[in-house]
Amino acid sequence: MANKKELRIGLIGCGFMGRTHSNAYNRIRNFFPELAYIPVLKAACARNEERVKAFAEQWNYESYETDWKKLIERDDIDAIDICTPNDTHAEIAIAAAQAGKMVLTEKPLARNVEEARKMVDAVEKAKVANTVWYNYRRIPAVSLAKQIIDSGKLGKIFHYRANFLQDWTISADLPQGGEGLWRMDANVAGSGVTGDLLAHCIDTAIWLNGSIKDVNAVTETFVKERMHQLTGKVEKVGIDDACIFHCHFANGSLGLFESTRYARGHKALYTFEINGEHASIKWDLHDLNRLEYFDHSDESRVRGWRSIHVTDGDQPYMDHWWVPGLGIGYEHSFIHQAADFLKSLETGEPCSPTFRDAFETQQVCEAVLESAASGSWKEIE
Amino acid sequence: MANKKELRIGLIGCGFMGRTHSNAYNRIRNFFPELAYIPVLKAACARNEERVKAFAEQWNYESYETDWKKLIERDDIDAIDICTPNDTHAEIAIAAAQAGKMVLTEKPLARNVEEARKMVDAVEKAKVANTVWYNYRRIPAVSLAKQIIDSGKLGKIFHYRANFLQDWTISADLPQGGEGLWRMDANVAGSGVTGDLLAHCIDTAIWLNGSIKDVNAVTETFVKERMHQLTGKVEKVGIDDACIFHCHFANGSLGLFESTRYARGHKALYTFEINGEHASIKWDLHDLNRLEYFDHSDESRVRGWRSIHVTDGDQPYMDHWWVPGLGIGYEHSFIHQAADFLKSLETGEPCSPTFRDAFETQQVCEAVLESAASGSWKEIE
Amino acid sequence: MANKKELRIGLIGCGFMGRTHSNAYNRIRNFFPELAYIPVLKAACARNEERVKAFAEQWNYESYETDWKKLIERDDIDAIDICTPNDTHAEIAIAAAQAGKMVLTEKPLARNVEEARKMVDAVEKAKVANTVWYNYRRIPAVSLAKQIIDSGKLGKIFHYRANFLQDWTISADLPQGGEGLWRMDANVAGSGVTGDLLAHCIDTAIWLNGSIKDVNAVTETFVKERMHQLTGKVEKVGIDDACIFHCHFANGSLGLFESTRYARGHKALYTFEINGEHASIKWDLHDLNRLEYFDHSDESRVRGWRSIHVTDGDQPYMDHWWVPGLGIGYEHSFIHQAADFLKSLETGEPCSPTFRDAFETQQVCEAVLESAASGSWKEIE
Amino acid sequence: MANKKELRIGLIGCGFMGRTHSNAYNRIRNFFPELAYIPVLKAACARNEERVKAFAEQWNYESYETDWKKLIERDDIDAIDICTPNDTHAEIAIAAAQAGKMVLTEKPLARNVEEARKMVDAVEKAKVANTVWYNYRRIPAVSLAKQIIDSGKLGKIFHYRANFLQDWTISADLPQGGEGLWRMDANVAGSGVTGDLLAHCIDTAIWLNGSIKDVNAVTETFVKERMHQLTGKVEKVGIDDACIFHCHFANGSLGLFESTRYARGHKALYTFEINGEHASIKWDLHDLNRLEYFDHSDESRVRGWRSIHVTDGDQPYMDHWWVPGLGIGYEHSFIHQAADFLKSLETGEPCSPTFRDAFETQQVCEAVLESAASGSWKEIE
Repeated sequence: MANKKELRIGLIGCGFMGRTHSNAYNRIRNFFPELAYIPVLKAACARNEERVKAFAEQWNYESYETDWKKLIERDDIDAIDICTPNDTHAEIAIAAAQAGKMVLTEKPLARNVEEARKMVDAVEKAKVANTVWYNYRRIPAVSLAKQIIDSGKLGKIFHYRANFLQDWTISADLPQGGEGLWRMDANVAGSGVTGDLLAHCIDTAIWLNGSIKDVNAVTETFVKERMHQLTGKVEKVGIDDACIFHCHFANGSLGLFESTRYARGHKALYTFEINGEHASIKWDLHDLNRLEYFDHSDESRVRGWRSIHVTDGDQPYMDHWWVPGLGIGYEHSFIHQAADFLKSLETGEPCSPTFRDAFETQQVCEAVLESAASGSWKEIE
Repeated sequence: MANKKELRIGLIGCGFMGRTHSNAYNRIRNFFPELAYIPVLKAACARNEERVKAFAEQWNYESYETDWKKLIERDDIDAIDICTPNDTHAEIAIAAAQAGKMVLTEKPLARNVEEARKMVDAVEKAKVANTVWYNYRRIPAVSLAKQIIDSGKLGKIFHYRANFLQDWTISADLPQGGEGLWRMDANVAGSGVTGDLLAHCIDTAIWLNGSIKDVNAVTETFVKERMHQLTGKVEKVGIDDACIFHCHFANGSLGLFESTRYARGHKALYTFEINGEHASIKWDLHDLNRLEYFDHSDESRVRGWRSIHVTDGDQPYMDHWWVPGLGIGYEHSFIHQAADFLKSLETGEPCSPTFRDAFETQQVCEAVLESAASGSWKEIE
Repeated sequence: MANKKELRIGLIGCGFMGRTHSNAYNRIRNFFPELAYIPVLKAACARNEERVKAFAEQWNYESYETDWKKLIERDDIDAIDICTPNDTHAEIAIAAAQAGKMVLTEKPLARNVEEARKMVDAVEKAKVANTVWYNYRRIPAVSLAKQIIDSGKLGKIFHYRANFLQDWTISADLPQGGEGLWRMDANVAGSGVTGDLLAHCIDTAIWLNGSIKDVNAVTETFVKERMHQLTGKVEKVGIDDACIFHCHFANGSLGLFESTRYARGHKALYTFEINGEHASIKWDLHDLNRLEYFDHSDESRVRGWRSIHVTDGDQPYMDHWWVPGLGIGYEHSFIHQAADFLKSLETGEPCSPTFRDAFETQQVCEAVLESAASGSWKEIE
Repeated sequence: MANKKELRIGLIGCGFMGRTHSNAYNRIRNFFPELAYIPVLKAACARNEERVKAFAEQWNYESYETDWKKLIERDDIDAIDICTPNDTHAEIAIAAAQAGKMVLTEKPLARNVEEARKMVDAVEKAKVANTVWYNYRRIPAVSLAKQIIDSGKLGKIFHYRANFLQDWTISADLPQGGEGLWRMDANVAGSGVTGDLLAHCIDTAIWLNGSIKDVNAVTETFVKERMHQLTGKVEKVGIDDACIFHCHFANGSLGLFESTRYARGHKALYTFEINGEHASIKWDLHDLNRLEYFDHSDESRVRGWRSIHVTDGDQPYMDHWWVPGLGIGYEHSFIHQAADFLKSLETGEPCSPTFRDAFETQQVCEAVLESAASGSWKEIE
């Protein structure tokens, strides 16, 4: 693609998110041919050489590294994409920014506000393009929700509610920590469902409904002790298994958020609903191609929730895919974010959510955990 | 209720339909107090004295009879309501009409066109008010469908499809005929699913979409022999277990109908859908308070099937019930028809479907069975 | 019905609830003929003579009264049914109990714990049968949920969540207080959505999941001032328009409750979900005949939420109604409670929820309001 | 990928299906790394050089051709994939087979049985691997349906019904034929909805439920004349806009099929349902990750349709994708077929549906059109 500018990527981390990001880069050429930039997969990086080598081959990377510091030092790389566990985000991102690389980081931005603040400072000081992969914004139905809200159809907002329900940690026999289970280890993940799942809900909420002023939360750890894979010992569980909070948004609406990994029957049920004076919206990750929309201005006798199958060319991103009625999947949200990041290099506009945008989500997450610990309202600074 | 005119009812048949009709009469006073006429339950009639006595007491009838001819002779009765098996409809209805009684008959009108024609002649000659209990027309969501169609919102109609799926006769151990099972006996019922279930679908279809011109059908009897309760012998089954037909409506649309008692998982799934140039409608008896409506004139990005919860006061019949959001049930369709029959006595307008209206449905049913027998198209005369 | 024992009813209040209760009594004879007791509608009572006279005629009451104290004095009455606004419950109930009458009260039991305590004391001292019309317990799908939970299928419970969403007070032009609008007047109603809607959610929750230990709530009044119908002046609104709380149940599960009258698109969306170790349950008032059930013990490849159409004869109450697949409505929950109250007179067992049961709900409601006021956790005493 | 065997592909046709197939080949490396064969995209072919050049670049083809005969002559190509309009399938496929190439053809196999027969003969004579892209078989939920049926869970089958409803040709202003509209031209497409949409339904049906014995059909062309893009004149429309048929399957079950492009509100609603003695299955393309399953052996009180979210690793193909709960899309069905074709080269087993399998579907399609023309039953030879 001779006439394209190259964005040379170095990706760190070969797990679940390494796969979703790598897939996204590989799809750009096929589905977003109009972009001026094309990603070039220069190198994948992970500590286990055998694994990273196979990963690089599977995902069309030109080379691989086993030390992320070396990756950052390479001259042939423009952007570092961080897909490693949360405890490494800050160190890598700051080093990458200092080396003048663009930085893309899997969410959450960091384990806590302190780390996150340093990361924001680093990318802003270095003036490097940056984004955080809160991918659900780019599900077409969610993007359509944003368009509807921004058009003013909802009027004054009264309520925002979201939950993210899973059931994969119910068994007390599931170990904590270690290979494939770092999300169970508070030291690595920073928190449990709050950083893993509620962070998504909060990011979407702030995007759709504006800032959160204060929160009042409760958390619970249902299984108090689990065997730790790394130590082989039964240890106290440090993460939150479930977290609920209510809050005030700056626009005067009430918010309600819940997340758990103990909701039997729900694999990854991220839902949100927003109720306005004139209209309401609902969405559900298990039926991700649909948006539910209620418009009170419809004639009363035939008024009802509309089930919008968001697969038409005039709906967000869908002109890049198939024909009306044919749905897309989870992975496409990452492709859309990759495309938007590339587009942002053309336009010079930031690709939201930037580190700074994601910092606000991090503040809310931290306030939620503090509120739960203290049993009282906590303001977002 | 001193200022009310009385409609003195004699009801024949104490089975399932005897109950639904009796309940309807009992509810009028409570829910339709504005009507000029009030039903007075003069007598219930059935051959088994013990049973009819208990039935009369349970349903507030003033008296009972064990011989329907005696009931018809009584001077204190204005209207005969026929809830007996199909093989008795014609004889009773004709005798009642000849005695100058109004006649209400449970559907189907008769076992066949020949009987039905005599019944129409009898009530028209006697000039007595008459109606057939095709109750589903008066489910509020179905009545709303009629209003929407009549308003012209759908434009030219292309398709009408309906099915009525049950699963209660799958077991080969179920006997045919006899107590509670007369619908399995072709001599008594006239036919199987065609007269029992498709008759409902056809009545609604003609009401919503106009006359049917011709039909092409297939029937099937999956269990060929069953023990007959009355003879105690294993006998050939005479009814159609399933029936499918396609057809042309007079308005140029294509129709598709299916009914069966062998659709595992569906208890009483009556559904219909009508597709027009500008809008479409769907309905489903298992969620009877909802109407699905798609309006192509909605803005394209936010267009979708609307799930209308038909429980508001400006929707058909619902000003007689509770508050928005609170659903009603199957039995209410009969109450609405009873109310409409009483109202028709005030206005002098017929209460549809009249015997003549139901005759058309009978013609279609017969054409369907003939088409299935001959394997060829059959026109409705 | 010579062989029946009579329960002679005096009903106070001719509004929405007066209608639902009156309908319930009228249906018993038809649908619960096996009961030893039959309700006899002796007298309806309301201040407006014209209205109560018409109401009495409409609902088959033998007589009417315009002074509830007179009603209570009558010797021909066994039970007083209170369907008046909340501010009168305590006085009437206590007087009725002291007069030796059984007492049935529409929910909530009272405006506050203080009133409620006196009411419990009164009926317990007088040893009169009593019940509170938390009718949703007797929706068959909800009763089935109770059976499933009691059978142990869910195992250890992790989560209970419920909400009750309406949208009828969004318009700022809606007056507060007065005819048909007493639920908007804090003096009459005691509170807004907390006592009106959350009380239902709490009653069901305690029934299904046991006692609530502590709560943490937030309330909001979106429209701060409204014209008061009685004074004709614009006055400060005293009720809560919306209320959210999280809580701990005694069994260790987390609870989450929300109610509002500002959820555009929802007329009366009462939903609850309960997640257990082995199974989960969901229910929704807008599709009241269905129960959603997830059973983790199903074979994994074909595991999914089951949509149970609760209309079969082996499901709660449904042997009293029609045939499988044919749904019932909102009003039937009251008929079931009336039947259960009559049955309780035969068995001598209390008819839940008794005043004492409902007192616990009142305690939670009050704790919720106190928590919202203080912004902190509140324990249930 | 040094240790992989190459399957060198030449693809003809750069339209919608050219894109779905090209995407499929590009994804194999990423998502099916375990396969012994890897597709190598040697050349894309189309008449318009500018377009095919861009297509080749977009989809990673090494080269392009503008004459399919040249493509077939090339020595560096193992398999020809035909994505051109239907009127070219036979000529290309036969030539490719005669040249010893494997042949993959987009569905339907041909315009008619005569063409199809020659194609089958050609590939069988040449003994070349072949398959037809009836992609819906490889939607995981549809593949799961096949597994469930093959396991015997359904028992004796009574009913199979399917429909494929679209609404994109309602406007009478839509031209026929020409660029992007060849499906509207009977000469090119062979037929209208029968070959385009019902062919899918029939392929799935035969796969799931066995052979069809005879059919009875009706077709309709709602818009009789349309402007032809190529001639610029208003011409008679030759295709069927809608087609309905009922049929007998060899296993004794009744079938019912409907397709139309005039069902307002449905973009691409392919649904099927199969009712067996013990269980039933439903599926719907608009919610393609779900399978509805009813198992009568469930305990009766908690029996209901299960909504299976087919996204777990033990469900067909899903171990190649993400984590439970995260859905995939339409395009993945093509990826799965490409993977299965590659696998078939390893195992030596044919990749169904082969040309011979698809020939049976072609026979049914032709019988359907003949039945509609004659108005009588037509047996499948």
